[in-house]
Amino acid sequence: MLRVLLWMLFAVQSLSWAGVLRTEDQQNNESVCQLDDSLLQEIRSYQPIVENIFYEIVRGRFAGKTWESVAELTDTFGPRMSGTEQLEKAIDFSIERMRLDGLENVHTEDAPVPHWVRGYESAVLVEPFYKELPILGLGTSVGTPEGGVLAHAVVVESFKELETLPKETVEGRIVVFVPEWVSYGVTGQYRSQGASAAAKKGAVAALIRSITPFSIGSPHTGVQMYEAGVNKIPVASITVEDAELLLRKYRRGETLKLHLVMEDYNLDPFVSRNAIGELVGTVYSNTSVVVVSGHLDSWDVGVGAMDDAGGVMISWKALTYLKAMGLRPRRTIRAILWTGEEQGMWGGKQYYEDHREHQEDEFNFFFEADFGTFNPTGFDFVGNEQAGCIFQEIVKLMAPFNITNFRATSDAGPDISYWVGDGFPAAAFINENERYFWFHHTEGDSMLVENSESLDKCAAIWAAAAYVVADLSLSMPRS
Amino acid sequence: MLRVLLWMLFAVQSLSWAGVLRTEDQQNNESVCQLDDSLLQEIRSYQPIVENIFYEIVRGRFAGKTWESVAELTDTFGPRMSGTEQLEKAIDFSIERMRLDGLENVHTEDAPVPHWVRGYESAVLVEPFYKELPILGLGTSVGTPEGGVLAHAVVVESFKELETLPKETVEGRIVVFVPEWVSYGVTGQYRSQGASAAAKKGAVAALIRSITPFSIGSPHTGVQMYEAGVNKIPVASITVEDAELLLRKYRRGETLKLHLVMEDYNLDPFVSRNAIGELVGTVYSNTSVVVVSGHLDSWDVGVGAMDDAGGVMISWKALTYLKAMGLRPRRTIRAILWTGEEQGMWGGKQYYEDHREHQEDEFNFFFEADFGTFNPTGFDFVGNEQAGCIFQEIVKLMAPFNITNFRATSDAGPDISYWVGDGFPAAAFINENERYFWFHHTEGDSMLVENSESLDKCAAIWAAAAYVVADLSLSMPRS
Repeated sequence: MLRVLLWMLFAVQSLSWAGVLRTEDQQNNESVCQLDDSLLQEIRSYQPIVENIFYEIVRGRFAGKTWESVAELTDTFGPRMSGTEQLEKAIDFSIERMRLDGLENVHTEDAPVPHWVRGYESAVLVEPFYKELPILGLGTSVGTPEGGVLAHAVVVESFKELETLPKETVEGRIVVFVPEWVSYGVTGQYRSQGASAAAKKGAVAALIRSITPFSIGSPHTGVQMYEAGVNKIPVASITVEDAELLLRKYRRGETLKLHLVMEDYNLDPFVSRNAIGELVGTVYSNTSVVVVSGHLDSWDVGVGAMDDAGGVMISWKALTYLKAMGLRPRRTIRAILWTGEEQGMWGGKQYYEDHREHQEDEFNFFFEADFGTFNPTGFDFVGNEQAGCIFQEIVKLMAPFNITNFRATSDAGPDISYWVGDGFPAAAFINENERYFWFHHTEGDSMLVENSESLDKCAAIWAAAAYVVADLSLSMPRS
Repeated sequence: MLRVLLWMLFAVQSLSWAGVLRTEDQQNNESVCQLDDSLLQEIRSYQPIVENIFYEIVRGRFAGKTWESVAELTDTFGPRMSGTEQLEKAIDFSIERMRLDGLENVHTEDAPVPHWVRGYESAVLVEPFYKELPILGLGTSVGTPEGGVLAHAVVVESFKELETLPKETVEGRIVVFVPEWVSYGVTGQYRSQGASAAAKKGAVAALIRSITPFSIGSPHTGVQMYEAGVNKIPVASITVEDAELLLRKYRRGETLKLHLVMEDYNLDPFVSRNAIGELVGTVYSNTSVVVVSGHLDSWDVGVGAMDDAGGVMISWKALTYLKAMGLRPRRTIRAILWTGEEQGMWGGKQYYEDHREHQEDEFNFFFEADFGTFNPTGFDFVGNEQAGCIFQEIVKLMAPFNITNFRATSDAGPDISYWVGDGFPAAAFINENERYFWFHHTEGDSMLVENSESLDKCAAIWAAAAYVVADLSLSMPRS
């Protein structure tokens, strides 16, 4: 009785959440969609199940549990960088707990990951005045020679500006890149390619303005890639504050001298593991699998709660909650907790190598959550038109919970990109992640970023979408 | 002609800024105000002068200059902690530049300031897992014994909770205070008094959750005070992220072991200087002075652009701009750039000691800018009712520029608090400083926080208010 009462209260409140049931985007896209009436009826028949999933996860017996699980994982193991014992322990823990949660076929699959080690790091502006600059070496960076690098700085705002400089201006100097924030894709290129661009001009090291639109004095780490055949020089991020300071001083004609010490180094690749658990389908157990995923590894600053323990946990717990609710779909839902994503999607790549051969039989649909677990508002979809039309109808089932956005896009997550490249349909959820890059790869990526109700809603839309896709009478069409 | 056109454009836009000319607060307060018609007429006669001051500073020849001046000061000298050469050089620079700006009676007055030195600082959670915790020792903290302190942690959320613990639970431990953010006044007590509260229970060190409502992994420093007769133990701030992490782990019953190393120490007081410049009044040169002020010292992290180079610069430049405009009031306006504020208002205190004897003749009104130089919206006023009524009429002159708030309060700034205590009227401006404590005493206190147009508007209201108060035919009544 109490349960019925709660349910009614929930349903009433849900209506007030709903706002617009169909966005303009949806209405526009719909004109191209010509789904059979019987299919439409079938999809719409999931409405009560979807509402029940939301009820149980957001207001019912699972409310608040996802936040607690993310906190337990990150509080117990802290940051989980590739090559560290902490990551491997977190994988062991996840396997053990997935089994306790009743997930099936719980196992790991090996994947080699880079083994980069951050040593002592320090950067000091020694002229014209002494200022310690907080830095974070970028993943795969080599260290400085013993005693560090003491050199004058050349400060540029773009690759183009660097290009225009004569080689003698750059040779033997430390290049400081101060690109304006545009987007992660555009500005992130300075982080990934800055060292080699500077090395080509004879620079001895590179410092990169942190890739973020907002800063409170924290440097942001991340991976970088040396170009083949180019001298490998040490590279680190500096804060936006210090980058802008150095730029202004350089533009005024001041001579800047820096002392950079980085004791970072690279070891041979390390064998890590993707952690996998399933809710085995009632009809198709080994074929037509629906994958839900996030990556378990993180950087070594902060604890990777946002990037990506939240994504991991909603993927794993979607199965836990569905099973506890007695909801077992026709197809298997497979939760994959990727390893080695941060340093180049190594877990995702190896999984693709290992499973690509029989891919047409094995897989149906891929989900990845790696863009934050803030309040969710809809879905990004990648795939062919017909699959998009079907998925859009599924998304409409969540309209009572204000999940109303639908975007056809080209990216649903890094680790599943190999499958997307082969034409598989895939989705990620849209969430209110406007501040995502504020915390990204910093000491600020902590449980403070995660909101319990938002995590519940992310787990709910994840479970609901995976369940319906996995239970439909037809397979999702592939490009 | 161009100038007239610009002026007209400015005036039209100003009207659209205005919004509500009189706030509800003003209307309510006005019922107690019974100013003579002649005084009201006199105040209102300043309307064109005030508008001209705003025009010149915000849109005219001084537009953008204040930001450039703050950038030059902070980029050249960096952080300016009491006892450092950087602060003394910044004082020399300010004196030299105030003279170049044409300010009069430019000089310094000695003031002793604490001489605390930050040495190497490190905190590591060594059990149950290894995690480096970014810390900042608090001003006046002693260092740890050689080799640091290795001890278990006791985590509490309040002084009250600490009180309830038996002494043997705390003895030999490091107390970690994790108070929820309420306000700077309330929560800041943990920073200022945490060490002594912990020491009374036998603790060997204390760590304090940074005093801020929002964090991206930066610790916030600040001053602390040892209680007389209580054992002095080392004390540092930790990030909000780490504080909450330690609290959750402790609440789960985990044993936390910390290794704290702080090589901080205190030297004998250092003689620093308040830097002073004037715009000498046409009628009263040495009496009835109007003080405008900010503090030139800062903490040693970030560059103290917000706290308080912005406040310093608008105080100094208010005089520069008024002089350049040929606006010299009847009373002297005296810009004071305080020293040693951060570690206990030492410059303000010494100035009071040196000038209090003839205070009734010497001073008329005090302004201080130490709450940020974000977009200004009005004034806080401290003083008796009649002075408040007069000042409120002055504020109304700025209504065309959306300066419409007026609050009678008890605090107009730290360094002028001694004069306020003696009954002098004083004011500070209200500004959109909702994010002030995000950056406060961190690496994030940089030029990125300062917006050029907002600084112009702060300089304009500062110059306008000081000018009218200094030029009125009557002195501001004192309590």
